[in-house]
Amino acid sequence: MTEICIRDCHALVPNEQGGLGVARHQDILIQDNRIAALRPTGEPLASGVTVVEGQRMLALPGLINTHAHVASVLFRGLAEDVSLERWFNDFIWPLETHLTPEDVYWGAQLGLIEMIEAGVTTVADHSVFMDEVARAVEAAGTRARLGWSAFSSGGYAALAETAAFAERWKGGAGGRISTCMAPFSPYTCDDGLLRACVGHATRLGVGIHLHAAEEMNQTLASVSRRDRTPIQVLQDMGVLSVPTLIAHGCGLLPQDVELLARHRAHVGIAHAPKQALKLALGVAPLRALRKSGVPVGLATGTASGNTLELFESLRLMAMLQKHDALDPEVLPIPEALDIATRGSASALGLGTELGVLAPGALADIVLVDTRGTHWHPQHDLTAGLVYGARASDVHTVLVNGRVLLRDRQLLTLDKERVLAEVVGRMERLARRVPESRPRRYKP
Amino acid sequence: MTEICIRDCHALVPNEQGGLGVARHQDILIQDNRIAALRPTGEPLASGVTVVEGQRMLALPGLINTHAHVASVLFRGLAEDVSLERWFNDFIWPLETHLTPEDVYWGAQLGLIEMIEAGVTTVADHSVFMDEVARAVEAAGTRARLGWSAFSSGGYAALAETAAFAERWKGGAGGRISTCMAPFSPYTCDDGLLRACVGHATRLGVGIHLHAAEEMNQTLASVSRRDRTPIQVLQDMGVLSVPTLIAHGCGLLPQDVELLARHRAHVGIAHAPKQALKLALGVAPLRALRKSGVPVGLATGTASGNTLELFESLRLMAMLQKHDALDPEVLPIPEALDIATRGSASALGLGTELGVLAPGALADIVLVDTRGTHWHPQHDLTAGLVYGARASDVHTVLVNGRVLLRDRQLLTLDKERVLAEVVGRMERLARRVPESRPRRYKP
Repeated sequence: MTEICIRDCHALVPNEQGGLGVARHQDILIQDNRIAALRPTGEPLASGVTVVEGQRMLALPGLINTHAHVASVLFRGLAEDVSLERWFNDFIWPLETHLTPEDVYWGAQLGLIEMIEAGVTTVADHSVFMDEVARAVEAAGTRARLGWSAFSSGGYAALAETAAFAERWKGGAGGRISTCMAPFSPYTCDDGLLRACVGHATRLGVGIHLHAAEEMNQTLASVSRRDRTPIQVLQDMGVLSVPTLIAHGCGLLPQDVELLARHRAHVGIAHAPKQALKLALGVAPLRALRKSGVPVGLATGTASGNTLELFESLRLMAMLQKHDALDPEVLPIPEALDIATRGSASALGLGTELGVLAPGALADIVLVDTRGTHWHPQHDLTAGLVYGARASDVHTVLVNGRVLLRDRQLLTLDKERVLAEVVGRMERLARRVPESRPRRYKP
Repeated sequence: MTEICIRDCHALVPNEQGGLGVARHQDILIQDNRIAALRPTGEPLASGVTVVEGQRMLALPGLINTHAHVASVLFRGLAEDVSLERWFNDFIWPLETHLTPEDVYWGAQLGLIEMIEAGVTTVADHSVFMDEVARAVEAAGTRARLGWSAFSSGGYAALAETAAFAERWKGGAGGRISTCMAPFSPYTCDDGLLRACVGHATRLGVGIHLHAAEEMNQTLASVSRRDRTPIQVLQDMGVLSVPTLIAHGCGLLPQDVELLARHRAHVGIAHAPKQALKLALGVAPLRALRKSGVPVGLATGTASGNTLELFESLRLMAMLQKHDALDPEVLPIPEALDIATRGSASALGLGTELGVLAPGALADIVLVDTRGTHWHPQHDLTAGLVYGARASDVHTVLVNGRVLLRDRQLLTLDKERVLAEVVGRMERLARRVPESRPRRYKP
């Protein structure tokens, strides 16, 4: 039985050539938590169907943020225009010494609200105090892949606790939460810890989410110190043999891309172009990765990029690739949209469930309002989406067949309360304690 | 007599070190069309003063778009992901063969609405049918520097008409409109036409606005064909001896920067980073220009960049410079804000009138709503402004002491009518007539 009908929207759907295009004036029928059908509007609806009006809206699959530290939005504005080294050593790690589970609970809600308001329905979060993040996701109604960051400095007992989290929340929130092991990176985790993560992941039937080859300096340091690139380290420790999501990849060498290609069935890259630009990390080789069939997904990073907005990441990604290639024909609109939808879902190993508006897919759907001045004239809705859309255009958001945002109003979390809680924590959170820094960035 | 008081806002103002900072809880008093005073809020107001509430708003000087072809928003979405050559030859110039004065009238209004809604109060527009643009600006209530594009292919009679336009509208709309001569570029204007432009400009007491050294290919072609860089051509033709605004400059060589520095008192660069990224034009040498004291202003370009939003240009500018320098400390927040405000005003030769919230400056003021989720927590409002602000945050806009936008509602142009007119013209405008292309891009 159809339960919800999004009536008379334009829908971003796969076309016959395998690309993505806009089907105009469609009804999207939703049954339970899945899309039951898409069809031209106008057919009568069964009684009892809840209608969501979609006129002049562009329906997209819910956006997927493939890499973020959601609660770190608490720190945005505190570490601006600094090097990656200072970012970690003088700001973020010293700042994090204050972080309490309660801070993370409210910070995660803040980030989740920002994302829902911007059409982001799934996030892969790699942080600490992840039970709080999971509780926030449960309350927000969104979908998440959650991993608790592990470092060699924490030792194996702490690692076991991160595995216990992964076990505890696997399939949580009615299946909306999946989990993973989250070694921070090859430069903060030694070989033993990486192997142990693979062991836990295999035992629990989950994957791994980590940072690697974030910039070329890391790669060069790894080669100099371990005689292998970070990706080769991952290969040797068995990480690439389990489903793995690798954040950033601006330091990938051609041989790394080859190595990743061999594991492309279950290994993907999370690309955060705003972070890459702002921290001057360089350019991820997206064309080579795509050519090799390695899934690439879109991401925001977090406090370093200041926002959790994927529309911005989408056009930054497309433009940065053109700039870097000195060729404006590189990464054209259809490919950018493919990365932002099907690519992101594939990078999370959810390519059959998310990232597409098609019968059988999970009903995570965003309605983008195209009535704004900046959308006119509408010669090409996909151009508007990639190069002009704003988070504020997001009008309605459904996850798992449930409406979370309607007419820009959030229906789940208590936004006023969350903002007030965050404001109340600011002063303490802004205090840095460099001498109590838990570790040092030195790739 | 104070007529308007913006009460209890935070204001972006010059600080004692010569930079820009946020003064919290200020009243901004406006008399006629100028700022009379800024002072801490709380003092009683004279009776008869109109109060604009500014709580939780960040007041900025009205943003200045130093280079755009406003009515070309009519074409956005029609020429995507193509080279500069194809952009001109296969799309924009063939498309423009359809353009009527009425199209430009409605297209200019569309662009002006988009800009007002995004806090842009002044634009330097370089296009055709400029009487229509001037009428649109007059009705919109904004400020503009207008020049009618001239090409060698049009000949001297057409050039004289563009000079007549500059004379006709100089000081128009109660002083809100200033004019200039607008030779398109050194690659479409021969030496004689450039000299004639200088003659007209001198006679009329106006400046020149043109494209030059947009990308390195143009510079190399000019050296090969004319034995001089485009900037040297401008110097030799006398262009740099009158107030001149040069768009793009991604093809500037070190010797060009030196040459511009000699004329920095009246020559500026309009930098459009989104266009540079999307068309892969390269990077304008902003640091060298700023170091040499050459005014740099912020711009959008137009149809090529899809939007007329300067907040986006602002962060793209800062991030592109970091990326290009491989140094995230380059072009930090205060400098980015300086370019977007005082730099843009200086590039237009209006540095004493616009681009600053200070007594005596023209009362062009934007209130940015900082209540949104993405603004929290507010550790640093300037970081929020550069890296997080959205056009949709613009709440109130004043130009010349008059409120044009209040609570996001436009008070001047008839938005519904404009959108309807634009929609009605779309089909005809989208038809290209390559064989009737008026000229060919071949730098």
